[in-house]
Amino acid sequence: MNNSFLPNTSSTSTWIWYPGDYEIWLGNQMNNRRTERGAFFPPFWKMDSHYVLVEFSKKIDLASPEEIEIAVEGKFNIKLDGKLQFGMPNKFTIPAGKHSLNIKVWNQPTPPAIFINGKTIKSDSSWKVTYEDKEWIDASGKASDTSATIYMNAEGWSDFNASDKLPSAYKLSTEIQNPVKIENIENGQLIDFGKETFGYLRFHLLTGNGKVNIFYGESREEALDKKYCETLDKLSVDGNSVTDEALADTKPLNEEYILANSKAFRYVYITKDSGVDYKEVNMLYEFKPEIRRGSFKCNDEEVNQMWNVGAYTMQLTTREFFIDGIKRDRWTWSGDAIQSYLMNYYLFFDKQTVKNTIWELRGKDPVTSHTNTIMDYSFYWFLSIYDYYMYTGDRHFIEQVYPRMQTLMDYVLGRTDKNGMVEGLTGDWVFVDWADGYMDKHGELSFEQVLFCKSLETMALCAKLTNNEADKTKYDGLATSLRSKLVPDFWSDTKQALVHNRIKDKQQEQVTRYSNMFAVFFNYLSPEKQQIIKKSVLMNDSVMKISTPYMRFYELEALCAMGEQKQVMKEMKDYWGGMIREGATTFWEKYNPTDKATQHLAMYGRPYGKSLCHAWGASPIYLLGKYYLGIQPVKAGYSEFSINPSLGGLKWMEGTVPTPNGEIHLYMNEKTIQVTATEGKGYLTFSSKTSPRASKGAIEKLDGNKYRLMIDGKEEVIVNYK
Amino acid sequence: MNNSFLPNTSSTSTWIWYPGDYEIWLGNQMNNRRTERGAFFPPFWKMDSHYVLVEFSKKIDLASPEEIEIAVEGKFNIKLDGKLQFGMPNKFTIPAGKHSLNIKVWNQPTPPAIFINGKTIKSDSSWKVTYEDKEWIDASGKASDTSATIYMNAEGWSDFNASDKLPSAYKLSTEIQNPVKIENIENGQLIDFGKETFGYLRFHLLTGNGKVNIFYGESREEALDKKYCETLDKLSVDGNSVTDEALADTKPLNEEYILANSKAFRYVYITKDSGVDYKEVNMLYEFKPEIRRGSFKCNDEEVNQMWNVGAYTMQLTTREFFIDGIKRDRWTWSGDAIQSYLMNYYLFFDKQTVKNTIWELRGKDPVTSHTNTIMDYSFYWFLSIYDYYMYTGDRHFIEQVYPRMQTLMDYVLGRTDKNGMVEGLTGDWVFVDWADGYMDKHGELSFEQVLFCKSLETMALCAKLTNNEADKTKYDGLATSLRSKLVPDFWSDTKQALVHNRIKDKQQEQVTRYSNMFAVFFNYLSPEKQQIIKKSVLMNDSVMKISTPYMRFYELEALCAMGEQKQVMKEMKDYWGGMIREGATTFWEKYNPTDKATQHLAMYGRPYGKSLCHAWGASPIYLLGKYYLGIQPVKAGYSEFSINPSLGGLKWMEGTVPTPNGEIHLYMNEKTIQVTATEGKGYLTFSSKTSPRASKGAIEKLDGNKYRLMIDGKEEVIVNYK
Repeated sequence: MNNSFLPNTSSTSTWIWYPGDYEIWLGNQMNNRRTERGAFFPPFWKMDSHYVLVEFSKKIDLASPEEIEIAVEGKFNIKLDGKLQFGMPNKFTIPAGKHSLNIKVWNQPTPPAIFINGKTIKSDSSWKVTYEDKEWIDASGKASDTSATIYMNAEGWSDFNASDKLPSAYKLSTEIQNPVKIENIENGQLIDFGKETFGYLRFHLLTGNGKVNIFYGESREEALDKKYCETLDKLSVDGNSVTDEALADTKPLNEEYILANSKAFRYVYITKDSGVDYKEVNMLYEFKPEIRRGSFKCNDEEVNQMWNVGAYTMQLTTREFFIDGIKRDRWTWSGDAIQSYLMNYYLFFDKQTVKNTIWELRGKDPVTSHTNTIMDYSFYWFLSIYDYYMYTGDRHFIEQVYPRMQTLMDYVLGRTDKNGMVEGLTGDWVFVDWADGYMDKHGELSFEQVLFCKSLETMALCAKLTNNEADKTKYDGLATSLRSKLVPDFWSDTKQALVHNRIKDKQQEQVTRYSNMFAVFFNYLSPEKQQIIKKSVLMNDSVMKISTPYMRFYELEALCAMGEQKQVMKEMKDYWGGMIREGATTFWEKYNPTDKATQHLAMYGRPYGKSLCHAWGASPIYLLGKYYLGIQPVKAGYSEFSINPSLGGLKWMEGTVPTPNGEIHLYMNEKTIQVTATEGKGYLTFSSKTSPRASKGAIEKLDGNKYRLMIDGKEEVIVNYK
Repeated sequence: MNNSFLPNTSSTSTWIWYPGDYEIWLGNQMNNRRTERGAFFPPFWKMDSHYVLVEFSKKIDLASPEEIEIAVEGKFNIKLDGKLQFGMPNKFTIPAGKHSLNIKVWNQPTPPAIFINGKTIKSDSSWKVTYEDKEWIDASGKASDTSATIYMNAEGWSDFNASDKLPSAYKLSTEIQNPVKIENIENGQLIDFGKETFGYLRFHLLTGNGKVNIFYGESREEALDKKYCETLDKLSVDGNSVTDEALADTKPLNEEYILANSKAFRYVYITKDSGVDYKEVNMLYEFKPEIRRGSFKCNDEEVNQMWNVGAYTMQLTTREFFIDGIKRDRWTWSGDAIQSYLMNYYLFFDKQTVKNTIWELRGKDPVTSHTNTIMDYSFYWFLSIYDYYMYTGDRHFIEQVYPRMQTLMDYVLGRTDKNGMVEGLTGDWVFVDWADGYMDKHGELSFEQVLFCKSLETMALCAKLTNNEADKTKYDGLATSLRSKLVPDFWSDTKQALVHNRIKDKQQEQVTRYSNMFAVFFNYLSPEKQQIIKKSVLMNDSVMKISTPYMRFYELEALCAMGEQKQVMKEMKDYWGGMIREGATTFWEKYNPTDKATQHLAMYGRPYGKSLCHAWGASPIYLLGKYYLGIQPVKAGYSEFSINPSLGGLKWMEGTVPTPNGEIHLYMNEKTIQVTATEGKGYLTFSSKTSPRASKGAIEKLDGNKYRLMIDGKEEVIVNYK
């Protein structure tokens, strides 16, 4: 890699570390906070860790001597032009001229990280890092050839921009929230915080001697069900101290006692021994500060509420990482995360949390299982990286993460069968979806092959972005070969669809929605077959229905991609509107509006197993932004965008979609479209029965009654159409 | 792996962890203590780390309910028969009957470890461990198939046998040592501790204000050379506190001030500002408590001294791990370590420290470089494992470490050339030895192929021990193929020797001792060629001489293996005796007795770069035990041994060689051999001009004037011979 004398790229310093290392470390903190009825519940896949010894280096060219401030997390040394310097100083002066500066840090408990700040020398992503410099000196004093040493660029977060903002001390923000209602029920208090929330329960003036039992509930039913609620805490108070029994952790009794473990709840039911008392209970709401850069509003208040509840669901599940649900797993899951990323691009446009989650999910080599042990989740991981590139234009990240894409793909390719297809082997979780009926997981699933094929295409695209021609050729070849097998191997003329799976090269009977809808929006089928599928599968009620918002996301996306916005609006109102009508303040893990007898709270064989605040529930955010406002990037980072708005039965809508350094705002009613794009350019495409007029630019006529207009410039463009 | 209901194997509990994990973590502590003139000096290879999330499990069959004591390093949960239990209790009762007990631990800074103690349930190596259980539950509550999950057996040290003996708190022992002489020189004090030592300098009643400078020396010259001594410390005292400037660490000023960093020295030179004072300086000697189970004594006092200085050198370099030298690197180095192991088998028979060092050197996957970056050091790592098995009979360890042998060998095999041979690629350090003249490192070195071949043979042997027939066949095939190329490719009839290397399939001119002597004692050459080499290389002064004790070890071993004990005794007295005559209290990294002009202290281009206490210096321990007392294992763990004593010019000798659970004691003079073996059996082989007599057993006559006698039984056997 090129490690020549680089210009400084940043005007501010940040703490920097080995790419992915801090994210993996922070992910361990995050993924190890799950509890189940007072028992610690860590993940069942390998948790990786940071490199404990990292060398940071930079080639410097100074016009005049410069003093730098040095802050380090770990034990370190400084080498100037190959010469070790005494001690671990917090200031150091570098003479004028060309120099090599190396700082090597060892840190076992937390990731090695440095913060360097001088007039021109700043710790930033222009610094090189390695976990193994292979710099030895032989008996004669001769240095080794390090030309094969692998250097990466350092990573840092803009938040960590001062020497005292230690990455290892990072915490989310908190603020006090008070109950909206307190009821005395049996021998306890039921406290209602008015809506789903997350954080630390807080007792004011806890005194006396005895036990306090705390039962959390996302629903009133759950909090009151001491035997089956999913999370609980037990305190033991003895006058001077209080013990959190789940953690076996004792603290002195002060005016305020804050539980050490955060929980998700709307309701808390508290019972206690008579010898113990407290004055008040409230909570510290914990959150990642986010700005809602995206917005949506329309004439239908239910749709607006859907968007708002989706945004709040996203706020709660966007933490150090994008997690699944806040009550139960509280883990990063790749299939859940890719949807959070997509929603995020239409809401917060928080690039950092996307990158964090991608690093964290991937972990380190060697790869010993699929991502989260789930085959489909490995594939979503690949797909999410190219999505990220398209929305943000951040090619640097692709370069940083590409080596880990290679090794994960090596793992996948090492597990293909004689047809070059993936089948679930022992230890692989073939997930697809939580289905309401039997779904065969044996043999070659068409759904998995479609995702595998798209992953291979993604590898080829990223290989090209990183100038790896050999890889591009290899992955293109593999993708083409697999794609060419999809129709011959899975298409059934009898079923007029892709069948669900093949066992020993033989098509099975079942048809499911999954591969058919993915094949539609990956464009793997002829336009003719796409239309067939719409009828034979997507709009065919006899094919097993999807009851998770997770797969509804893709199903509705496939319909939108085929122009069925009106139908999708109806289904959204039915499905997400249905949850709201049932009192949801955040969206759920699973919901079936056509089966009212279904117990809404149960799942996984447990009465309150279902998560009532699940990231994958928030997809209206994405659908409304991408397929109603109709805004998406055409070239990376919105340098070119497309706007294909569709009212889908609404009278008017208005909204904003964030771009990396700007935004696109759109208002539309049945006669007018108003667009303002502060970044990039692209076509606004729309239909009109009569010849439309634009306040700026020349409208082109396309086939049928379609028109398009190039939007290029920051001022508002108004189109009149009919 | 078989995880069925096992009988408990141990009567005592120890803390247990994932195999190798504690050793790797402790190795990081150890390898990151090196300093150079007050600068922290960590290794240049990848430092690995423990798995942060580990599940421990055990199948239990109880006649009656049993309460267990639970101690854990980390956050943990307990699962009984698949059901999570509340909290993190320190006691837990398991009902009678068959049960599965699982304890899952997360610990980021130190290795996850547990200590379980009940009447019959004990944490020991019968427990299974995994870093990835892949136990998920699907929506219906159905558990995953974990039959492909990889379980290993836990590891533990017998030292950690109580709940309060935390592995993460492990420290070596210390005791106070006082100076033997104090001199005032210029403005400072030169303090002499009488011999090479290691530990923490300790000030009594340090007071006042000002700087204290401490210069350490293995020699008087070094301590007095403030500009070039290899290690130093600077203290800054301000009345109330003292700052260790190298560590930027400030502590309150108490009666005693002990330096935080240990150092190696015999001499310390201390200078100070006039405003600061101290009453007394001594040191805390730090050591690993070891018992000298082996011994050697003979009529030649110089040889006895050689053995004693060797034993003290071993004592100082045997720490948490076997390290190279105590002043400078203080690192584990594979080539150095294999010699320490061999010496150790004739001195301490400390199995634990051998295993620790093997784990530590290997680290974790992925393999990104040779062991310590050195090609030959990867090979020594393989060899050391079979040595360990032969001396200890510990087959369990082979099973535990075999997966890491496979992945290191995969790395090596991934770097072979078209001839199936190894060549140094960029980033590989081809070390061989610190030579006193030019040694070509290019192309295929015969020395590296010989070690590679022996490594492949070792893989095959260990594959057999672990019942891996496919691997055995594969590695046997590779070894046979490589062995068959050695003579055709490297033997030169002109040189009457193996040449040093080939470049582009062409033999080069140079002949060195290395491959020739290894080929001799690996028996890779015909008896005829072995005799030729003895003359043309080993006893030929025109071939570049060896000046490190490191390679002298193998050179003298090769000569001993060919029966040249008399010659070797002469050379030992010359070489190690030479160091003693120059005042050595421990043996050095490098020494050339024929070149008195050589500066004894300089190396690596630095005036005091040479280490004066280097483990590889202690080889007389090994040579005297194995080739004079003549005792070695024939079958694993000394179940069968051989005793081929040789006085090598001495009048009498007497010594003990430890075996796993016993010892072999031998006394020999020119007429009598007395043997007592408390474990195992085997032949005593010796020469006699007349027909010998034995106090027990029947002597067999062999070829020439060779005889042998089976030693089987614990009583002393006396042989009279001439």
